[in-house]
Amino acid sequence: MPTDHQTASTTSMLRVMNERAVFGEIFRLGPVSRPELAQATGLSKPTISVALANLGRAGLVREVGLRAGPAGRSALLYEVRPEAGWVLAVDIGRSFVRLVLADLAGTIAARVDDPSGSRNPADLLAQLTGLADDLTARVGIGRADVTLTVFGTPGIHDKDTGALHLAPNLPGWSLPGAVDRLSAVSPSPYLVENDTDLAAVGEATYGLGRDVAHFAYVSIGTGTGMGIVIDGKLYRGARGCAGEISYLPIGEGDPLQDDPAAARRGMFETVASADGIVAAARRLGWAGATSAKEVFDAARAGEPLARRAVEVEVNHVAHALAAVTAVLDLELIVLGGGVGVQGGDLLLGPVQERLPHLVALAPPRIEVSTLGADAVLMGAVAVGLTEARDLVLARTVAATP
Amino acid sequence: MPTDHQTASTTSMLRVMNERAVFGEIFRLGPVSRPELAQATGLSKPTISVALANLGRAGLVREVGLRAGPAGRSALLYEVRPEAGWVLAVDIGRSFVRLVLADLAGTIAARVDDPSGSRNPADLLAQLTGLADDLTARVGIGRADVTLTVFGTPGIHDKDTGALHLAPNLPGWSLPGAVDRLSAVSPSPYLVENDTDLAAVGEATYGLGRDVAHFAYVSIGTGTGMGIVIDGKLYRGARGCAGEISYLPIGEGDPLQDDPAAARRGMFETVASADGIVAAARRLGWAGATSAKEVFDAARAGEPLARRAVEVEVNHVAHALAAVTAVLDLELIVLGGGVGVQGGDLLLGPVQERLPHLVALAPPRIEVSTLGADAVLMGAVAVGLTEARDLVLARTVAATP
Repeated sequence: MPTDHQTASTTSMLRVMNERAVFGEIFRLGPVSRPELAQATGLSKPTISVALANLGRAGLVREVGLRAGPAGRSALLYEVRPEAGWVLAVDIGRSFVRLVLADLAGTIAARVDDPSGSRNPADLLAQLTGLADDLTARVGIGRADVTLTVFGTPGIHDKDTGALHLAPNLPGWSLPGAVDRLSAVSPSPYLVENDTDLAAVGEATYGLGRDVAHFAYVSIGTGTGMGIVIDGKLYRGARGCAGEISYLPIGEGDPLQDDPAAARRGMFETVASADGIVAAARRLGWAGATSAKEVFDAARAGEPLARRAVEVEVNHVAHALAAVTAVLDLELIVLGGGVGVQGGDLLLGPVQERLPHLVALAPPRIEVSTLGADAVLMGAVAVGLTEARDLVLARTVAATP
Repeated sequence: MPTDHQTASTTSMLRVMNERAVFGEIFRLGPVSRPELAQATGLSKPTISVALANLGRAGLVREVGLRAGPAGRSALLYEVRPEAGWVLAVDIGRSFVRLVLADLAGTIAARVDDPSGSRNPADLLAQLTGLADDLTARVGIGRADVTLTVFGTPGIHDKDTGALHLAPNLPGWSLPGAVDRLSAVSPSPYLVENDTDLAAVGEATYGLGRDVAHFAYVSIGTGTGMGIVIDGKLYRGARGCAGEISYLPIGEGDPLQDDPAAARRGMFETVASADGIVAAARRLGWAGATSAKEVFDAARAGEPLARRAVEVEVNHVAHALAAVTAVLDLELIVLGGGVGVQGGDLLLGPVQERLPHLVALAPPRIEVSTLGADAVLMGAVAVGLTEARDLVLARTVAATP
């Protein structure tokens, strides 16, 4: 009868909702007791017990020992069973690829950092597949056991065409369907996210952005970019292009902008990325300057030309952050990327001094990322864990009649 | 007994929630039938009938006649009783004050536009109070019958101190407590909102922003500003300063910026507001230029100096919109304000031509506001109606045991 059927569906839906709520709280709170779960979810203790039994039978949750309670009573604690799921996080950076394998409890079980070999899709795919094989073997699972893979890449993934836009450092990936080839790295479902957006999620979950409603992660390195968190959530914009600060019209009067090829990279990225710093040093008379790191090291040693090149960079960065502040009025801006992190000691103070002269009210807090080069990778882990939690639960539900 | 009391409260809370849902849908859908309300709210028809009876008794809703239905049956329709509440919307502009009195059904019952007399608080308050008296008298109510007053002002209302920041055109209002004096205009509750933020709400409710998830209203006139709508909601930023595009570091190389007093207004406002256009015309050799309108009229007549001044303005506006696009990746930018609307015919095309060279992907749609000078006022009406709907309902609940 239709009515009975509906009742059955409703009961089963309720059961799934309760299990999801209980699993979500175990995930969030770590080892946690039945009374704590009842309080966190608002569900009755018998309902919690049923959900825990089901989650235990499905291999998603395990008992983890006792905690001494008041008056000598002790409570059994529950936690996510770490091997219930695996997240493979992959940061496809300009100089390095970094991979992390995390279990469902969020523990990083294995990691590898490898210089980017070739950037053409076929070679990069072979490199990533080899590294994924290696990582999974190290923890005694196969690539097929990975619940979800999250790739962080520069540029914007166009889901309609499978092409990667605005990633000039990854030639070949702008062709339709190129991104879909990442499925070869692991047979698991996968997500492709902009690296700077992931870094912002990394900061929001593990870094300086915890408990901050509105903040941005500004990356300056071989390229430039920004990930925006509004009301604690990643803001992507109408087409996933929010935070493309490479195209801020900053440094327009700069000679670098006269090169049309450079201007296509965006005005701000052209003058303020690592290349831009080297170009500024050369223009100021240091013909042999070859890397931003070299310029920063010379500036720290008091070399006048290098210090002037750093001043030029400070000016560009301060103007970009002023533009971001004018539009978004954030609480915090986290500086990241190779230049932002390695040059942070030289840039942060002068940028903080300059900014009050460029903005309406007091400027936002500006701090150098404490996650450093790991921000993208940790963001990929954070996104992956949330998605994997839902995936393993959905599979359990599908398997339970 | 506590348990009985709790049950009574729960029942009464449920009743209020149902009435709020029904009232909200009548508000949203206009004249609407009982079956339509049942569908829109998900409530049963008997529950709808009880809510309608209560709302009718409270004077919030009225029957409005029959609509012929299928098979000869006809349905009784319900609508908000217009006189159940009144919203006074006040736009405190730089040159004009504009007031509208709207009934709770959203019909504009009376309106007045008056040149801003003096801008000092005492004189402005006297002017607004006189105009509010006049408007309410015209519809046969008193100032005490206004449910809610919404003021749109330039600058940022600091609720902690009662001062208005960043509104240099309203001298005297930056003192602590100055804004609180607006309570003299009407004994009703009141809200003070940034005028450009209200204009964005006006566009979202009555203008080009309807059904657009992410858009901005960019105002260029005697000042500059931007109201941002993200996911259909006004985005204010950490301190209510989001969209302060006056401080975009655009036009930095402009001679106007050498004046420190001007630079304090913000770089973009200094070069791109009405003043900035006049200054550009003078700098180009038209010593007698006195107003942006005069420059636009001369440009339309083909006067070369005026056309070059317009080109300078196009360049500034295009760069500002490029910066906004880089950060926010919007679907639509609505151009408003005196310069934006009156000069729209001269600015829109050239800005649209220039922008693709300054942004990463295709630029967002750019359109001139169709609400024109009424955008702020209509935003105040929209905000006021939503708040007034909740206020009259809350009063009814307070009056019903």
